[in-house]
Amino acid sequence: MLLMSGLHRKGIYPGTFDPVTYGHIDLIRRALRVFDEVIVAVADSGSEKKPLFSIQARVGLLKKATAGLKGVSVESFEGLVVEYARKKKADAMIRGVRMISDFEYEFQMALTNRKLAGDIETIFLMPHESYAYLSSRLIKEIARLGGNISSFAPPFVVKALTRKLKS
Amino acid sequence: MLLMSGLHRKGIYPGTFDPVTYGHIDLIRRALRVFDEVIVAVADSGSEKKPLFSIQARVGLLKKATAGLKGVSVESFEGLVVEYARKKKADAMIRGVRMISDFEYEFQMALTNRKLAGDIETIFLMPHESYAYLSSRLIKEIARLGGNISSFAPPFVVKALTRKLKS
Amino acid sequence: MLLMSGLHRKGIYPGTFDPVTYGHIDLIRRALRVFDEVIVAVADSGSEKKPLFSIQARVGLLKKATAGLKGVSVESFEGLVVEYARKKKADAMIRGVRMISDFEYEFQMALTNRKLAGDIETIFLMPHESYAYLSSRLIKEIARLGGNISSFAPPFVVKALTRKLKS
Amino acid sequence: MLLMSGLHRKGIYPGTFDPVTYGHIDLIRRALRVFDEVIVAVADSGSEKKPLFSIQARVGLLKKATAGLKGVSVESFEGLVVEYARKKKADAMIRGVRMISDFEYEFQMALTNRKLAGDIETIFLMPHESYAYLSSRLIKEIARLGGNISSFAPPFVVKALTRKLKS
Amino acid sequence: MLLMSGLHRKGIYPGTFDPVTYGHIDLIRRALRVFDEVIVAVADSGSEKKPLFSIQARVGLLKKATAGLKGVSVESFEGLVVEYARKKKADAMIRGVRMISDFEYEFQMALTNRKLAGDIETIFLMPHESYAYLSSRLIKEIARLGGNISSFAPPFVVKALTRKLKS
Amino acid sequence: MLLMSGLHRKGIYPGTFDPVTYGHIDLIRRALRVFDEVIVAVADSGSEKKPLFSIQARVGLLKKATAGLKGVSVESFEGLVVEYARKKKADAMIRGVRMISDFEYEFQMALTNRKLAGDIETIFLMPHESYAYLSSRLIKEIARLGGNISSFAPPFVVKALTRKLKS
Repeated sequence: MLLMSGLHRKGIYPGTFDPVTYGHIDLIRRALRVFDEVIVAVADSGSEKKPLFSIQARVGLLKKATAGLKGVSVESFEGLVVEYARKKKADAMIRGVRMISDFEYEFQMALTNRKLAGDIETIFLMPHESYAYLSSRLIKEIARLGGNISSFAPPFVVKALTRKLKS
Repeated sequence: MLLMSGLHRKGIYPGTFDPVTYGHIDLIRRALRVFDEVIVAVADSGSEKKPLFSIQARVGLLKKATAGLKGVSVESFEGLVVEYARKKKADAMIRGVRMISDFEYEFQMALTNRKLAGDIETIFLMPHESYAYLSSRLIKEIARLGGNISSFAPPFVVKALTRKLKS
Repeated sequence: MLLMSGLHRKGIYPGTFDPVTYGHIDLIRRALRVFDEVIVAVADSGSEKKPLFSIQARVGLLKKATAGLKGVSVESFEGLVVEYARKKKADAMIRGVRMISDFEYEFQMALTNRKLAGDIETIFLMPHESYAYLSSRLIKEIARLGGNISSFAPPFVVKALTRKLKS
Repeated sequence: MLLMSGLHRKGIYPGTFDPVTYGHIDLIRRALRVFDEVIVAVADSGSEKKPLFSIQARVGLLKKATAGLKGVSVESFEGLVVEYARKKKADAMIRGVRMISDFEYEFQMALTNRKLAGDIETIFLMPHESYAYLSSRLIKEIARLGGNISSFAPPFVVKALTRKLKS
Repeated sequence: MLLMSGLHRKGIYPGTFDPVTYGHIDLIRRALRVFDEVIVAVADSGSEKKPLFSIQARVGLLKKATAGLKGVSVESFEGLVVEYARKKKADAMIRGVRMISDFEYEFQMALTNRKLAGDIETIFLMPHESYAYLSSRLIKEIARLGGNISSFAPPFVVKALTRKLKS
Repeated sequence: MLLMSGLHRKGIYPGTFDPVTYGHIDLIRRALRVFDEVIVAVADSGSEKKPLFSIQARVGLLKKATAGLKGVSVESFEGLVVEYARKKKADAMIRGVRMISDFEYEFQMALTNRKLAGDIETIFLMPHESYAYLSSRLIKEIARLGGNISSFAPPFVVKALTRKLKS
């Protein structure tokens, strides 16, 4: 059988990743079914929300979490995500949709980004149903209240989060 | 500059397309940004809904509507779409999401299809905002009531629909 | 105090009204706070849904239900509602929004109508909270199953519905 | 330790169950955590939708599916569910909520039932996340198209459905 | 007639209750139709939101508001609600659902809690339709702007809130 | 042709307008199709959110943006909007609905306002589809990240925002 080759497709998966969860990792794996290369772009998020982890720590945890995945790179960025996507010559931005209210926000973002950069498509992927409710915010809240988060994120993330919350 | 090559990615865009609208065509164009090949798969839909146009007519209108688009083919299929996607060795199924209630249904379909065929991803694309409200059902209803649908579908579709409704 | 006069504003309230409920009447009263004249436009609805009551019966029940309301007229229409609204020189179409899924459908209709007739605005009003769940379809279903619908529609509508379902 | 006794609580779980799925069975198990007795009430549904299975067949499949569950009985009913719930002296009606659009409909039903019978509460339970997308309608559609439904319903339901669709 | 006895069912109704509204009281009454005992569990909520009233004040207002209701107790708790529910040997957690966006959040919480403690069911109840829009946040906002909140909460809550906002 | 005169209808369009966008201006134009007079009421919003622009600046930008529109006035207000609407003898409050989650919040506000002032109706209008995603919050975020917002707001607003963010 002849294996046809196609264009090299590059997807960018932007987010705060504060910290990375099993839901994010699941989505990156799914994105690799469609893209030859997936750039996980970690937003510095200086303005609005204050991340718990530093940008370096968030990039570090993501690199560890995606170490075995071929075609994935992790980078931090500042400014508008569409500008970054353009600079990286990405074909599309990848976003996960978990629940309806999620989708509302994602829809708004995607329409705005399209207005700002019409050449970059946004594609939506659905995480595995067992991660449908998962969010970085949620696992931080559970960890703060002393709950067990080992089924929500890799062991080294759990450890980093526990250490962080103690400090 | 060196142009890297990647895997040949095949997406399948299933639907009833009764008949094709500008919204569908917009979505196919967007899909071509991510996939090297897009198979538009027209469902026979024997069981539940009764299409206005025959499967041959719907395939014919779609072929005409996508004539200029490289990498697009139009085919009809019977049975489960995931089985067809597997047979075609597609990497992913493509679905458009217009509004919330749409997404609900799409979400349910995608989760079910994932259960039936875990190896085929579903990706969601957003049509252009001016097609956000468009549906085949809607333009048939407007045409039936004597309204002008020329901004919703290509001229040859408008003509076919007008002829059909007179018969 | 000087009473200023303004433009004569005409609103059109289209629907199937099969049959009129307390929810519809509540909405007409609210519309009169904004419009000098409200035309209740009863759709013949030949194509898709088959109304239980004839167009004459539906117009008759509505006329009885709005008998005491100054500025309200009841008419039947065929074809596209925007065409009818234009013919009547209406400033706006009035629609009630009860629940979210309702709004989805209403949103789609309003955007389509705007495309078909950009000069006619659609305005949305909220019925009283005790009619938030009410629909003609629902009271027909309850009546069919032998339930008491006297708190959902005027006595003469209840009587007409009971008679109709027996026949 | 002393085991306190409480009031005997009776819940009624109404539906069409055409046919019973793993989602329904999961919900009945959950209801037993709150109610001492759960009556599964199978609606005859004469008026609107035409069930695929006869009322006898649907009751039979449910009885088989709940055979091992103490406190569960299966019955058919006609007319308004609130009337039936009252006759059975039920404390509450049980409904499963899967997705948003589901909830919309359920909300409307619950508000209407409360108006018809203010003494009977409606409580909502959430099925297991792997049944979040499951519906009787969906598995019938998949079965019709030749798909494998063995992970959606018990073996004897799969068999009955296959036999039914062949006839 | 013989009165059957059943298992003693204990429900836990967690929240911030800052302060208690007529909506909360309505929900507690409804919960008593299903549970023999309802524990109103007031979250200390140290981390995220800063309540207006102290935990003692919130518990005090709730005790006054539920004084006449047999089977109701009010307690404060810290940490994860599922841990508290387990310690109290509750059969289920009770949550009210008012509107769609509410339900989204509740759904996410319930799925997470189920993952953390699979043995504790979450049940949803619907408040009376006239409390469908009510929230503690809303009445605090109205009170701050000088509005009359006497139809939203008991007189002693109104008084406490007025006093608090003046200080 | 005789031009009939009607009652002078006054609508109030409340908001924070921080700053005014093309979406707001579009809505004001639409409101003028139904109302003889539209009062744009700028909320001081002392309590909860901290506006970027002072109340004077926001009123100033709005006045400039609506300079050419006959029947429009811009004012600031404090306290409850319904009280202000009453004082102004407005017939209705005008709100724009963009997306579903929007509508949820709007619905809650409208029901609460109705409870506080049953004589003032809330009417909902839909902005043009190209402003469906637009919000003051969004354009501030884009401007902060260095994005081009010239298609979202008039040039003098863009200039004011750029100057403000530099300071």
